Amino acid sequence: MARKSSLSGFPEWLPQERLVELHVLDTLRRTFELHGFSSVETRAVETVGQLLRKGEIDKEVYAVSRLQDEDTGAAGDDSLALHFDLTVPFARYVVENAGHLAFPFRRYQIQKVWRGERPQEGRAREFTQADIDVVGDGALPFRYDIELALVIAEALSALPIPDFQLRINNRKLAEGFYRGIGLTDTPGVLRSIDKLEKIGPAKVAELLKTELGATAEQAEAALSLAGIRTEDTSFVDRVRALGVEDPLLEEGLAELEQVIAEASKRAPGKVIADLSIARGLDYYTGTVYETVLVGHEALGSICSGGRYDALASKGNRTFPGVGLSIGVTRLVTRILSQDFAAASRQVPTAVLVTLANDDSWSAAQDVAAALRGRGIPVEVAATAEKFGKQIKFADRRGIPFVWFTSEDGAHEVKDIRSGEQSAADPSSWTPPVDDRWPAVLPQG
Amino acid sequence: MARKSSLSGFPEWLPQERLVELHVLDTLRRTFELHGFSSVETRAVETVGQLLRKGEIDKEVYAVSRLQDEDTGAAGDDSLALHFDLTVPFARYVVENAGHLAFPFRRYQIQKVWRGERPQEGRAREFTQADIDVVGDGALPFRYDIELALVIAEALSALPIPDFQLRINNRKLAEGFYRGIGLTDTPGVLRSIDKLEKIGPAKVAELLKTELGATAEQAEAALSLAGIRTEDTSFVDRVRALGVEDPLLEEGLAELEQVIAEASKRAPGKVIADLSIARGLDYYTGTVYETVLVGHEALGSICSGGRYDALASKGNRTFPGVGLSIGVTRLVTRILSQDFAAASRQVPTAVLVTLANDDSWSAAQDVAAALRGRGIPVEVAATAEKFGKQIKFADRRGIPFVWFTSEDGAHEVKDIRSGEQSAADPSSWTPPVDDRWPAVLPQG
Repeated sequence: MARKSSLSGFPEWLPQERLVELHVLDTLRRTFELHGFSSVETRAVETVGQLLRKGEIDKEVYAVSRLQDEDTGAAGDDSLALHFDLTVPFARYVVENAGHLAFPFRRYQIQKVWRGERPQEGRAREFTQADIDVVGDGALPFRYDIELALVIAEALSALPIPDFQLRINNRKLAEGFYRGIGLTDTPGVLRSIDKLEKIGPAKVAELLKTELGATAEQAEAALSLAGIRTEDTSFVDRVRALGVEDPLLEEGLAELEQVIAEASKRAPGKVIADLSIARGLDYYTGTVYETVLVGHEALGSICSGGRYDALASKGNRTFPGVGLSIGVTRLVTRILSQDFAAASRQVPTAVLVTLANDDSWSAAQDVAAALRGRGIPVEVAATAEKFGKQIKFADRRGIPFVWFTSEDGAHEVKDIRSGEQSAADPSSWTPPVDDRWPAVLPQG
Repeated sequence: MARKSSLSGFPEWLPQERLVELHVLDTLRRTFELHGFSSVETRAVETVGQLLRKGEIDKEVYAVSRLQDEDTGAAGDDSLALHFDLTVPFARYVVENAGHLAFPFRRYQIQKVWRGERPQEGRAREFTQADIDVVGDGALPFRYDIELALVIAEALSALPIPDFQLRINNRKLAEGFYRGIGLTDTPGVLRSIDKLEKIGPAKVAELLKTELGATAEQAEAALSLAGIRTEDTSFVDRVRALGVEDPLLEEGLAELEQVIAEASKRAPGKVIADLSIARGLDYYTGTVYETVLVGHEALGSICSGGRYDALASKGNRTFPGVGLSIGVTRLVTRILSQDFAAASRQVPTAVLVTLANDDSWSAAQDVAAALRGRGIPVEVAATAEKFGKQIKFADRRGIPFVWFTSEDGAHEVKDIRSGEQSAADPSSWTPPVDDRWPAVLPQG
């Protein structure tokens, strides 16, 4: 894994690494489809105006322009840029296709996104995200906030990664609490609280006091709230013990209690209430999610999201939604760098059909076709080299079986790992199920 | 299918259309893997220098730059652009990773590519290609030229498309023939011949005479060659009958004869020798392939490629290869616009578990989990609306089965198409195999 990508921030995998990524992608897709999510892809480009609608993120955007177009200087709202996430494009897609979708609409979307950030471990310029969202027309039952946490917990549990912790908070709870103690600049407080893990409570208190004019008591109360983290619904009593009263706080408490009550039952230990979770982006309006790999917290969140009540709208019709996004490239990079999992071989091929002589290529293709017809991946040797060389060809690739057809038409198959060789019939022989396709196996 | 994409040349599919695309992609992937091709993905961007190495195509390239970067004016060789095919990036990948790959290396690559061309039917600005290539280190047996034609014929045969015709020619044959009649500007002749289908033989003859200085006899001979198209190896005699002698012509004839002899046996009617096939790009050195949908020839080639002896090189080490590229978006666009195939439903979900009352959501999740554990895609209703409304929810999505659990815990499942309803056990009930997942079925 010491290989460097030739362009910093744009990782590329070797074939055996790509098998691990494919395993992750296939596992996510299957989980999402088992839960009834439809696949959607959006174009890689959006207009700059669409991308910058939410502000704050313009520095990360890659603009796209015709190389031969003289007019590249002025990047107007109509000019194009690569999407930096899948939420903004999906919101546009929902508005454009609302007449063709059945709401609540549940979709998954697995695509590359691009951000012009400084590359570092866990942060690439081109990376794959896997998103699920449920979007309603006008209204969306709260239960989807619970369901999506459970779907993500199930999806992540199926991956070859260490224990994870899905940390959940609620914006209403936080905003109501801050208001209850007299702090009304919610985005400002959230931005400060968001820095808790990086700069520690003392400096966050300083920020609250100097930048938001909080009193020592207000700062302390805000930090007390952010310090609450429970695996069950006991956070409710701990918040109440802080003695703050506000109707929005009550609403948020009730919502988060519902999520944690159900999730702690169905995914015990995987889902916790963490009242420090803030999420930078400003469109979340209720539940917010973050996820860390236990023991790899410094990697940052591997799956984040939340509830948004008005990300998309069309006239006075609004589309509230709730969704999460898995950082696939971040996860795969860590799986590979820490050897959490590896592919059992580097090629799909289970059987190499050898050539006894140069005229037997067509007959060898018949054998291969018979095996493939039963779902066995097969290659045919291209030239009738000595058998030793043909076996070495298979060995170098980790192909487990080598097929021989003698000039009188007798077939034998050899397991080159054990050396065992026996007669075989192309119309019925099958490798052990574990050898049929490369498997991605947890290591260590 | 009357929907217009909101950005011309950047098609996006509705969920039920995406199911057709996924079916195409899954089918291609499975065929390629059954033939031992490894999956590779390369980054979306290349340096401009890398992309323009082969010249001629700069007008189609989309440059990429940081939106906030002041220095976008001068696009140097190191600046970035979106790849316009998968061959150039793959060549770079092979050179960069040669030490980690086992040669001959066979890979498939399914990714989006971008070209700043004027959009029209069958020609998008963002589209998906599915490529297979085999690349050798120093040398590559000719047999791969035959094998790749067979793999592509098998892959295309598995798709819900009309009859196709894989048309094959050989650059050596053409070049040797032209040389034999005294025309030495091979690229020039090929460019003229390439226009045959568009402008007709008379105008091509004019071009050959005015632009390349051909005599009437030379033009006639070149057109006679281009007029040869056979389903078997009889093209060899027809070329010989033209009375031209050249060693390169003989080499090309022998190669093409091998391809057609084997392919006409293994994929009869699907693969033909067509001596008019030229292929614009200049890196092909032997076999060249094009593919048309019969009855849809105006759509252009849906799968093209060829043999290249020196696409990639590293010092004095060269990597010859042979490969083909399927235009997935072009195919899917045609499948959808002509209703060649459609998905049997618009969502993955086979079963909607209804709620008898609002407290039964968690119990409904238990039922859903039991079914999903057996690979059945399931959704749970979010609210305990009247059963009629919950059934309508399923009906609108084409979900075939609705599950009811009464307050005393009895389970029943209803096929909402037939109206049949019967007792069911969550731990054993299974839908008919055809209903489990949405199927993509050929139409009409």
